[in-house]
Amino acid sequence: MKTILIYSGGMDSTTLLYKLRAEGDLLHALSFDYGQRHKKELKAAAKICKKLNVPHKIVDITAVKNLMEGSALTSGRIKVPEGHYQDKTMRATVVPNRNMIFIALAIAQAVSMKFDRVAIAVHAGDHAIYPDCRPAFIKAMHTASKIANYEKIAISAPFLNITKRDIAKIGHQLGVPYELTWTCYKGLHKPCGKCGACVERQEALC
Amino acid sequence: MKTILIYSGGMDSTTLLYKLRAEGDLLHALSFDYGQRHKKELKAAAKICKKLNVPHKIVDITAVKNLMEGSALTSGRIKVPEGHYQDKTMRATVVPNRNMIFIALAIAQAVSMKFDRVAIAVHAGDHAIYPDCRPAFIKAMHTASKIANYEKIAISAPFLNITKRDIAKIGHQLGVPYELTWTCYKGLHKPCGKCGACVERQEALC
Repeated sequence: MKTILIYSGGMDSTTLLYKLRAEGDLLHALSFDYGQRHKKELKAAAKICKKLNVPHKIVDITAVKNLMEGSALTSGRIKVPEGHYQDKTMRATVVPNRNMIFIALAIAQAVSMKFDRVAIAVHAGDHAIYPDCRPAFIKAMHTASKIANYEKIAISAPFLNITKRDIAKIGHQLGVPYELTWTCYKGLHKPCGKCGACVERQEALC
Repeated sequence: MKTILIYSGGMDSTTLLYKLRAEGDLLHALSFDYGQRHKKELKAAAKICKKLNVPHKIVDITAVKNLMEGSALTSGRIKVPEGHYQDKTMRATVVPNRNMIFIALAIAQAVSMKFDRVAIAVHAGDHAIYPDCRPAFIKAMHTASKIANYEKIAISAPFLNITKRDIAKIGHQLGVPYELTWTCYKGLHKPCGKCGACVERQEALC
């Protein structure tokens, strides 16, 4: 398969990168600069793709940042909440329509490159707080994608129904260098260890 | 209703602008600069919104132009075909995943502005050549939109099953100033009168 991977540089999508590569996919990774606070993840993404010799593009969509306003991840005025993904306070990290935008752009890239599918690393742990990571959303986007263009691009989300802990297990088997990935929402010098992304990561990797 | 209108500055979306305004919608118009050959349409869009005192934003997505490659509308190397929308040669004007990208960005804007819906002026005459203007696509995007965010944004396409001729009739009743709109794909000083967009426009307005 020829796959466009939506690639953040975090632990989930890095594991998916390693998994698809091990399965023999021809890969093209796309990362999005949407003005996120934790822009550091883009450097991690570039470094890992370079290490694996996977073509990688950072797509600058900061021009549409103001369309996606209202999230702690894109606004300096909103504090990044601490805790678990299940906590209601975590809603502050939802970015308006983010995954639909990423998927729509990745489908365009797949059409223009004559690739077969778009892969995204959403997982069961995301479902509680992020509507655009849930099975019904991925299914709806797959349906829309199959009719949006003459080229019938599939949406693949192999981790959709497994947990972050399961992802870590797969990653360990594949030798994923988690020390190179970046997850923390705050994007400071070191991971904060307290935001939802840090907490979930630590629990998965321990 | 509070409506984000995907607004090209052409005759269809200008008619929709007038129609929604007449129906009392609170409107916010979004036009997209995606590196189209006929960038002139953006000036027409701005002019008409100014005339009606409707808030209007031109969203610069030229940074993702290379993701949408392969269309006569975005590539100087591909010739703009002449004829009707039904002609197979018109496929050269299809832009990879364009409407999904526009709709995804407009939904984000609706969420962040706390608006109710996104409106788009696709119509029956578009169906033959543009897969992302067909009823099944709009329905799939509506479904995806309703589950993508906590805010349930609807996708509205009131012209979906009527022809361009019907749109012109509605527009004449509403006093749409078609002389201010821009349709021609070539984007030269004057409309070429031969490309699909010109031919369809002339037949609808005559």
